[in-house]
Amino acid sequence: MKLQITLAVISLSVSQLFAQQPAPAPTPMLYSVKTLDELKTIQKASLAGDYALRQTAYLSNNIGPRLSGSPQAERAVQYVAEEMRRLGLDVRLQKVMVPHWVRGQEHGELIEFEGMAPGTTQKVILTALGGSIKTPDDGLAAEVIVVNNFAELNALGRTGVEGKIVLFNNKFDREMQAAGYGGSAYGQAVAYRFAAAMQAAPLGAVAVLVRSAGGSQNRLAHTGSMGYADGVKKIPGAAVTYEDAETIAYLAKMGKVRMKLTLTPETLPDAPSYNVIGDLKGSDKPDEIVIVSGHLDSWDLGTGAIDDAAGVAVAMQVANTLKQLKLQPKRTIRVIAWMNEENGGAGSRAYALEQEANMARHIGALESDLGATHPLGFIFAGKPESLPFFAPISNILGTQGAGLSQIQPNVGSDVNPLTQKGVPSFAPWFDQRTYFNYHHTAADTFDKINPKDIAEVGSVMAVLAYGLANLEVPLPR
Amino acid sequence: MKLQITLAVISLSVSQLFAQQPAPAPTPMLYSVKTLDELKTIQKASLAGDYALRQTAYLSNNIGPRLSGSPQAERAVQYVAEEMRRLGLDVRLQKVMVPHWVRGQEHGELIEFEGMAPGTTQKVILTALGGSIKTPDDGLAAEVIVVNNFAELNALGRTGVEGKIVLFNNKFDREMQAAGYGGSAYGQAVAYRFAAAMQAAPLGAVAVLVRSAGGSQNRLAHTGSMGYADGVKKIPGAAVTYEDAETIAYLAKMGKVRMKLTLTPETLPDAPSYNVIGDLKGSDKPDEIVIVSGHLDSWDLGTGAIDDAAGVAVAMQVANTLKQLKLQPKRTIRVIAWMNEENGGAGSRAYALEQEANMARHIGALESDLGATHPLGFIFAGKPESLPFFAPISNILGTQGAGLSQIQPNVGSDVNPLTQKGVPSFAPWFDQRTYFNYHHTAADTFDKINPKDIAEVGSVMAVLAYGLANLEVPLPR
Repeated sequence: MKLQITLAVISLSVSQLFAQQPAPAPTPMLYSVKTLDELKTIQKASLAGDYALRQTAYLSNNIGPRLSGSPQAERAVQYVAEEMRRLGLDVRLQKVMVPHWVRGQEHGELIEFEGMAPGTTQKVILTALGGSIKTPDDGLAAEVIVVNNFAELNALGRTGVEGKIVLFNNKFDREMQAAGYGGSAYGQAVAYRFAAAMQAAPLGAVAVLVRSAGGSQNRLAHTGSMGYADGVKKIPGAAVTYEDAETIAYLAKMGKVRMKLTLTPETLPDAPSYNVIGDLKGSDKPDEIVIVSGHLDSWDLGTGAIDDAAGVAVAMQVANTLKQLKLQPKRTIRVIAWMNEENGGAGSRAYALEQEANMARHIGALESDLGATHPLGFIFAGKPESLPFFAPISNILGTQGAGLSQIQPNVGSDVNPLTQKGVPSFAPWFDQRTYFNYHHTAADTFDKINPKDIAEVGSVMAVLAYGLANLEVPLPR
Repeated sequence: MKLQITLAVISLSVSQLFAQQPAPAPTPMLYSVKTLDELKTIQKASLAGDYALRQTAYLSNNIGPRLSGSPQAERAVQYVAEEMRRLGLDVRLQKVMVPHWVRGQEHGELIEFEGMAPGTTQKVILTALGGSIKTPDDGLAAEVIVVNNFAELNALGRTGVEGKIVLFNNKFDREMQAAGYGGSAYGQAVAYRFAAAMQAAPLGAVAVLVRSAGGSQNRLAHTGSMGYADGVKKIPGAAVTYEDAETIAYLAKMGKVRMKLTLTPETLPDAPSYNVIGDLKGSDKPDEIVIVSGHLDSWDLGTGAIDDAAGVAVAMQVANTLKQLKLQPKRTIRVIAWMNEENGGAGSRAYALEQEANMARHIGALESDLGATHPLGFIFAGKPESLPFFAPISNILGTQGAGLSQIQPNVGSDVNPLTQKGVPSFAPWFDQRTYFNYHHTAADTFDKINPKDIAEVGSVMAVLAYGLANLEVPLPR
């Protein structure tokens, strides 16, 4: 490994120093001199382009929220397929059956608390969690009890919980997010969103509320999937805003708090939908594949711009940039717009199943699903011995401030089934200080995309994908 | 003036250097040595106290939003009167008739635009402007046209405007706010909120939307009063969020945008309400008055914590601190919780009218109505010759980072009727970088109050009020 890397770095230096001379013998090098030159051209064109920005605008502003099973998701499938065809890709739709959950009314109000003005209630801003069952159509009224974690819930026992609404007041760690670890802060918080109902129902709770798993302090509720467990009674679940969690916790310390909660979501029969898959055929090894991807579905509160129209758009931008530059990769670059990342993962599961016998031919899988802020580099899931392979790519990306690379056990939920089968997997690595302020909220809208930043993400995707597609030797598996 | 100031400063220095010696003869000094010592004691106690914080919590969390005429406003009047009595003040309620506007349903959705998925609409987050008339109960549907200013509206003329909803897309200047001039940015933006309907109705518009007059970029609609003009047809008005304004403007550039708008507010008959007025009687000149005040009413979307429970709370904290320290001012300090600042100003008008013959006895009027972020000092409306009078006070406040003073034509809407009659008027002067992100939105909630900051505001109010109440010579009028 080390030897190859050294040679690759030398070959880069040679190409810079003696550009007029014939390149040195390319074996055993990682990237040809031509490829390295092309990567710089791709980077330049990506940074100058606005294709991803325009595609993100169209998906979020014109098509709008794209929850699995919705008419907008269907429209997005058709739109992206058409756009990929326009880019000259070989396009197919991979059919998948997806959950079809439809948000209904959602209202909360405090109807009893210390100091309440007679004849009033106090509004609680909340949003149903994805997959939640509904309350009675005219709502349910119950006392709210507040716990900070599962241990506090269990300490209350059935006598403390039965017949009540449980608010899990676990705080999203904004300091951790501010320090650059937004994903880690989210990971801590989301455990409550996922498991609240299955933990509280056995103790007799009638509904669960979770403090929003996100960093907003602007009265924004963060939705997202909740879980139910086999054999455990299903109860409704909703996320309240940071502010409402704070208010309820304050009031509950002063006395009894009662709330009326109305959620009327419906779970309809599973619906047919599609992964959109477009191939830019490789010149030398068309059967070997490098995936670039994002997910097409989104939550329904905002318009799914950062999560994840931007991801689909930067994946498509890879193809657009190569087409614009008239560059054909040696291996096939496969653009995938995944369906159903948000509430089921049906799309990525179906693809991994379909390609089970073909994993060895998947040379790399890239996914962008953490927004489109300034990328610092990329993360990688695979053999640590691969890391040195990326040095020439990071050298190029370093000129745009994206020179970091880091190994992680997995890089994203859509490529993870492939990662688990040994496919080297990649994702842009972002400045994470703001993403989880908007994630899964009504404020996930196009204006959150900075034109310069998304062009940088497109560049990371394109340089990395083309580099992998043109690798002279495959990555260690 | 100059001589007096010099002597005052000398007297301060003397008291510090020779604390064991008799103070020099106090005439013609501005503040007695004893007063200056007391001001430091008041500052220290204010900074250490949490009274204002707790009162803000109660008003916002326990009582909640307090729009004029609402049961919560009535409850707040009773609560504050009771609390002032508990503080030992002579309390009276000054009756005023206030507008009684009640928000109803408010919905917006785009029903036609470029690229719309069949069978869908796209939600627009908006809020009715205070005082708006309603649309038909089942909404109105019309094309939306977007203008950036009144000139663009007028250029369209009746043929361009008739039958349409006009969106005024004037941008709140976030850069100006970030630079510390949030109030100025607000002043620019609010002109559209106030005048949109009266400008668009004569051209045949059926409703107006304004881009929210505030700095939020979190899908928050900012409400606030709108104006109607005599003899001009009334049309409904609402504020859309920053994000929705951006989206509509984007879509309108691509083709026709139609929207369904449903607002069902009601304007009920004027209701009786009250200014709450509590006097801490002066020892030497009880008929001379220094007002400390904030407004008790609030908009209804949030819980009115920064606007303006905090203002009422810091005014009450002045009395609480003096009581705690067993200090009686030489002149009367009058705590006022104004009613109806937000949508009419009935409270402040009524007080100014009642006290018309008594203006000369109003030595100063303090108002806190810009939140409770870190105070930098105070602003002053009155004779420029007064500024040197404040140096000893600013010297003390400077130790907490609040040493600035600045002259402005008016300092706040509730004391402005007094300012106009020549009463020297004051307001804490704040770090304004965030206030207008939350102002008039659902996110105006208690959590926005920083405990240290509000104690600092209480200190500015108390030191300034006690200093004015104990001034040896009145301010120039």
